[in-house]
Amino acid sequence: MAVETVGVMSPGDMGSGVGGALKKNGLRVLTALDGRSYASRKRAAEEGFEDAGSLDELVKQCDLVLSILVPSEAHSFAQNIAEAIVRTDADVAFADCNAVSPETGALIGEVITAAGGKFIDAGIIGGTPRRGATPRFYASGEHAPKLGELDGKGISVPVMDGPIGRASGLKMVYASLTKGTAALYASTLMTAKSLDLYGDLIAELELSQQSTLGEMERIKTVSAQAFRWIGEMEEIAATFSAAGSTPNIHTGAAEIFQKIADSSIGHERVDSVDKSRSLEDSITAMLHPAE
Amino acid sequence: MAVETVGVMSPGDMGSGVGGALKKNGLRVLTALDGRSYASRKRAAEEGFEDAGSLDELVKQCDLVLSILVPSEAHSFAQNIAEAIVRTDADVAFADCNAVSPETGALIGEVITAAGGKFIDAGIIGGTPRRGATPRFYASGEHAPKLGELDGKGISVPVMDGPIGRASGLKMVYASLTKGTAALYASTLMTAKSLDLYGDLIAELELSQQSTLGEMERIKTVSAQAFRWIGEMEEIAATFSAAGSTPNIHTGAAEIFQKIADSSIGHERVDSVDKSRSLEDSITAMLHPAE
Repeated sequence: MAVETVGVMSPGDMGSGVGGALKKNGLRVLTALDGRSYASRKRAAEEGFEDAGSLDELVKQCDLVLSILVPSEAHSFAQNIAEAIVRTDADVAFADCNAVSPETGALIGEVITAAGGKFIDAGIIGGTPRRGATPRFYASGEHAPKLGELDGKGISVPVMDGPIGRASGLKMVYASLTKGTAALYASTLMTAKSLDLYGDLIAELELSQQSTLGEMERIKTVSAQAFRWIGEMEEIAATFSAAGSTPNIHTGAAEIFQKIADSSIGHERVDSVDKSRSLEDSITAMLHPAE
Repeated sequence: MAVETVGVMSPGDMGSGVGGALKKNGLRVLTALDGRSYASRKRAAEEGFEDAGSLDELVKQCDLVLSILVPSEAHSFAQNIAEAIVRTDADVAFADCNAVSPETGALIGEVITAAGGKFIDAGIIGGTPRRGATPRFYASGEHAPKLGELDGKGISVPVMDGPIGRASGLKMVYASLTKGTAALYASTLMTAKSLDLYGDLIAELELSQQSTLGEMERIKTVSAQAFRWIGEMEEIAATFSAAGSTPNIHTGAAEIFQKIADSSIGHERVDSVDKSRSLEDSITAMLHPAE
């Protein structure tokens, strides 16, 4: 049966953008707004989502549900979906698209499969369609071709060879680089600032590491995402540890993002972050705890 | 008294290059080869160093001694120099140029000052003159202008405002970036390889992170330097911890360099590293322990 109706949970910055893109490409897009925040309701309305209300209605009406959340919510949401599948005896596929370790992904898969759902392991790389990007939904596992039906419909879906765990593993090693360097840059600049060496370091980087200095500018807006990246770094640490490498680089990265999330600018979000602030002022603000 | 005779310990890859550059620029360059390795003796001879034999002779004949070692040897070498100063009552300046934390630098300073030497805190950024580079010897503390006399004589010597600790602090935050990213790249590629995701990750990076992928090529030759960077990462971890940030990113980096140093290619050195080997083959070799 072809995928015609897609459920998207939740309609956050990525989820609402993806749902909006799928809708523009001819799919029916549902979400379940019972108990969701005002911001989620607003984004869902902007993108033209239909509201199924409850998860029971969502799994009954959808061919495929996409779980797009912060990593710490992934497992409990899958359990809620599994219970809804059991209650409704729905024939539905479920793609966990969250930044979780292959091990966490496999646990989520067991929950869905035991309930009678078709589980797909997925990992999102790239930005939200809300800002013009076409994210890649890497997918693995026997049911991955079902997510693959959405390829070209506002998102890209590379279906990977091999079992469940490969898509989430790829997301982990990729985010290790992009968010790991962000943590390293932030920690270094914060330490330089604490040691009153900020200007000296920038001057030396202008001399010998101009491209690194250019990349560091993006640290200015990490305040808007640090709260989401804490759990992601912990999942990466678990992935690296299971693969025989050290978890400590990413455990440390999680600590940096926690410090930024708890700082005077940690309440900023993607739509509200002050992009006009200088890098040095951002670093100074990250060193000051929220009042 | 102007600096005319400089002692360089030890004549390793950086030390021999720096001494050779100073010699070409009109200074008398000494070292003490008693008990040094064949490789050090060979490099000292190539660069035209005079051999003072013992440390007692070295401090007697030199106006300034440069300590250029691996971080783990910095403190014990300073103690040996301090004892030589006490025995000979030499009037000598001593620059610790090693990658150590401001706290370790201050401890070394106390040892030298207590013996009657003039202590200079220094940090080297840049490559060895043996391969055409002009390294910057950042210097701080009241005697820093003495090292500053060598500016333009084959090396660059920016003298910093402020007390002892600033030069070593700058070296720490700088190396946090350059060697921290090297550790992150190596750990990520090693984990991707372990998870059989190496090709998938490279393909995604070719699509979305080409400049990062280009920088990763330099990981091929980390095998030649990992053994020196373990202690440096531990000093950076201590610096970051003292400044109120997490030590864990760099503790993890030290673990990665330890793993590479213990691997099947960890015995390689700057002059012997196989530059023709592919990045993937290097990563595979780093995952295999030495026999």
